Amino acid sequence: MEIVTKNTIRRYTDGKFIETDDIIAEEFPLTIYLNDVEFATLVCSPDDLEELVIGFLASEGALRSFKEIESMNIDERGGFCHVKVSRELPKDYGSFSKRVLGSCCGKSRQFYFQADVETSKYSLSDTKLTPEQCISLMKEMQEESTIFKDTGGIHNASIASPDGTIVHKGDIGRHNALDKLYGHCLQNNISVKDKVIVFSGRISSEVLTKASKIGVGIVLSKSAPTDLAIKLAHDLNITAAGFIRGSSFNIYSHPWRIIGADELESQ
Amino acid sequence: MEIVTKNTIRRYTDGKFIETDDIIAEEFPLTIYLNDVEFATLVCSPDDLEELVIGFLASEGALRSFKEIESMNIDERGGFCHVKVSRELPKDYGSFSKRVLGSCCGKSRQFYFQADVETSKYSLSDTKLTPEQCISLMKEMQEESTIFKDTGGIHNASIASPDGTIVHKGDIGRHNALDKLYGHCLQNNISVKDKVIVFSGRISSEVLTKASKIGVGIVLSKSAPTDLAIKLAHDLNITAAGFIRGSSFNIYSHPWRIIGADELESQ
Repeated sequence: MEIVTKNTIRRYTDGKFIETDDIIAEEFPLTIYLNDVEFATLVCSPDDLEELVIGFLASEGALRSFKEIESMNIDERGGFCHVKVSRELPKDYGSFSKRVLGSCCGKSRQFYFQADVETSKYSLSDTKLTPEQCISLMKEMQEESTIFKDTGGIHNASIASPDGTIVHKGDIGRHNALDKLYGHCLQNNISVKDKVIVFSGRISSEVLTKASKIGVGIVLSKSAPTDLAIKLAHDLNITAAGFIRGSSFNIYSHPWRIIGADELESQ
Repeated sequence: MEIVTKNTIRRYTDGKFIETDDIIAEEFPLTIYLNDVEFATLVCSPDDLEELVIGFLASEGALRSFKEIESMNIDERGGFCHVKVSRELPKDYGSFSKRVLGSCCGKSRQFYFQADVETSKYSLSDTKLTPEQCISLMKEMQEESTIFKDTGGIHNASIASPDGTIVHKGDIGRHNALDKLYGHCLQNNISVKDKVIVFSGRISSEVLTKASKIGVGIVLSKSAPTDLAIKLAHDLNITAAGFIRGSSFNIYSHPWRIIGADELESQ
């Protein structure tokens, strides 16, 4: 499926209106049925749907490994996905399906206390980056995100090693981009402990929690974190760096994974 | 409550690390109990909480007017809000609390089909703007959004008349900023039909639906829309303009509300 579409729009520029074609990001609702029970509706960019569903279910704790998936059928036309997993789900799995309204990075306290505690991990990663690697990984991700340049409406995320990008995903939803990455790693049995997440969007608590579930030790972002994300990063032993722009960036937690950050110059 | 907090961070710039103070956006979970039943948890910037809850409940269809609120108690320390409304809520109001995972602007099909149909309105607004007014309203909103300049983490939204901003709200969540505006208008009995929404974030289907519920005819955004938002804008008779930057912008639907947009120059 295409994740962008072409629209005819009117553009005002240089004091006059013209008619022109524009590339617009698609917004696609995908309803997931898990073992025949309606589980969630994701609103996403309609590509890599298998990876999205796998990553989403894993990050929700409904799935611990790729092998637990017995079947998965995606009806792209209707926007439905039926998944069977071998793992026995608790009977009150419905209680878990309380409404969560994202703050465009939403995190319900409830959700935080219930599902996240099970699946968030204290990072044991000892991968380190030089400042130059932080900057070049962000640059590389931005160069790969051609869709963003066209539509201005896609969040981008990569899994990278210190030397470069391994896989890149984009989605209109910031957490979907991360779920697609997670699904890709599970499907292809890629270990993430020694890897880094590179991300275009803000580091909210939800993004940080997802990074923790995926299992990386470093999150690099072009944008700012929230205070709750920084607290979680401290607790989960994750290095959060943001505002990576040009040749500058900020480190918000666990600076020891960025080489040289412990040796401060006088201000 | 403060919506930003100060953190000590390490900043890499000009090839060296320094320690410095940084302003970070707070991320605050607020759980709403409606007539003693847990209804939703919003993750928000912790200011204007009353307006947020009123606007949220109205946009969910749980509230049709400010007078229906019998009581509202907000426990800021615990992050709880208890609201009683006089309106009798359907017994299956729980079915409505299906999990909705935002696409960082999330819209479940379900939600779209159920609650939105009840509360979305075909816009009857005949307010028009000149191109210069579109540009100056965006400029005014950006000048008011001082928090964004500090933290880079806040979405901004205004209700404006063609001549200027009436009220401005900010939040880490794009839809929370709109709900705060909506709540403010309900609380202060401000008619919105002849007004305009000015918005910093992407126009997703959810943002467009909220604008429709609020009742405006024009949405101006600094960012891009999605295809689903454009379709909804067509259906709901709303003028969506985006990418308002410098002296240019795009019109995606119902250009007749922007003066001169029907008279095209040759391309």
